[in-house]
Amino acid sequence: PPGRKVLIVYAHQEPKSLNGSLKRVAVEELSKQGCSVTVSDLYAMHFEPRATRNDIVGCLHNSEEFNYGVETWEAYKRGGLSNDLIEEQKKVQEADLLIFQFPLYWFSMPAIMKGWMDRVLVQGFAHEFPNCYDSGLLKDKLALFSFTTGGSREMYAKGGISGDIRYVLWPMQHGIMHFCGVKVLAPHICFAPEYVSEEKRKEMLIAWAHRLKTLWKEEPINCSPEWYFK
Amino acid sequence: PPGRKVLIVYAHQEPKSLNGSLKRVAVEELSKQGCSVTVSDLYAMHFEPRATRNDIVGCLHNSEEFNYGVETWEAYKRGGLSNDLIEEQKKVQEADLLIFQFPLYWFSMPAIMKGWMDRVLVQGFAHEFPNCYDSGLLKDKLALFSFTTGGSREMYAKGGISGDIRYVLWPMQHGIMHFCGVKVLAPHICFAPEYVSEEKRKEMLIAWAHRLKTLWKEEPINCSPEWYFK
Repeated sequence: PPGRKVLIVYAHQEPKSLNGSLKRVAVEELSKQGCSVTVSDLYAMHFEPRATRNDIVGCLHNSEEFNYGVETWEAYKRGGLSNDLIEEQKKVQEADLLIFQFPLYWFSMPAIMKGWMDRVLVQGFAHEFPNCYDSGLLKDKLALFSFTTGGSREMYAKGGISGDIRYVLWPMQHGIMHFCGVKVLAPHICFAPEYVSEEKRKEMLIAWAHRLKTLWKEEPINCSPEWYFK
Repeated sequence: PPGRKVLIVYAHQEPKSLNGSLKRVAVEELSKQGCSVTVSDLYAMHFEPRATRNDIVGCLHNSEEFNYGVETWEAYKRGGLSNDLIEEQKKVQEADLLIFQFPLYWFSMPAIMKGWMDRVLVQGFAHEFPNCYDSGLLKDKLALFSFTTGGSREMYAKGGISGDIRYVLWPMQHGIMHFCGVKVLAPHICFAPEYVSEEKRKEMLIAWAHRLKTLWKEEPINCSPEWYFK
């Protein structure tokens, strides 16, 4: 609906890829609805995935023994995180919905996107014990994981050789988003686009645009072990 | 036993950390046994986690539309991968055992280590359909995930708020290592070292050294859904 803000965190090297098209479709459809859409195009930004001392501007809290979690927490509180992190945190703060668009790499997100999670979702900003899971600091936001796979739907079926696709969603949806209080919409998965016809790939884009039309009416999933492991 | 080769892939910024100590203990104990031990210290190497066109030297197979999986596969076959990848692949090729030592970040490995998986385990080198899972190209090797957690053992119990710790092992052990044919030893987990006494942390190091003494007699786990999800 008009006024809603969406952040698309996008990780593909090639604009002509299906992931690139899925991202464009989302920008177009959500803009058409009157949403304001921001894209973090991680490869184009040369986004830094490594969690290092460079993420803290100025002196360290404890320079004797570097602890990334403690240092970024302290730096967040005094406004001393590096600019690229502050930028991303602003985008997250303003967003009602986060869409993660990526090709599944090794049963997870590509390293560049994992680095976004590792570095942006700092303690104090996204969570702060005991404010985690249902009381995480990013509650009242929604997230949606939209990705393509190399393996087929059959390989990722329960009993398939790669196991239920929901198994790979646990760390991403529950371990990251739910931990920060974010409510999770059902994932959007395009299975094995490299092995289907151009026609089928077009249908995948149409299906995504179609889903986005009624996205704001969807209920979040119940992000508990039952959803993942039945 | 004498002659066995071990590669430790290590991802921590601070040598004085428990992860740093666990790595040192492994180098010492395995060397004492007569093993030859190599360490890839990813932060010290400034290891590149991003999967980009820079990983391919020379011309692309298809420069119209960049496909990372296809391009690295083609580059591997003609010896055209970037030097840092060739180096890591040599270490993997020579190793009988791979030990991954890291702090758990967001229910997974740190981005810098995920980038090692994304970039080093290239098709043609580590797998090549239909040579995956039990017939993956790295069969006859062993892997062991050794990591520290922020959450306690209770949080990571079945029924605990963070779910069974085995759930987070599925993508790493089954989705990556088993996919490449590598047999997986039981993980080695130090729960919440930041919240225990110095004394307890020392016991953690002793326990790791102790386990390493009989490591070569261990049987791999049965890396199937039952092990993870019962």
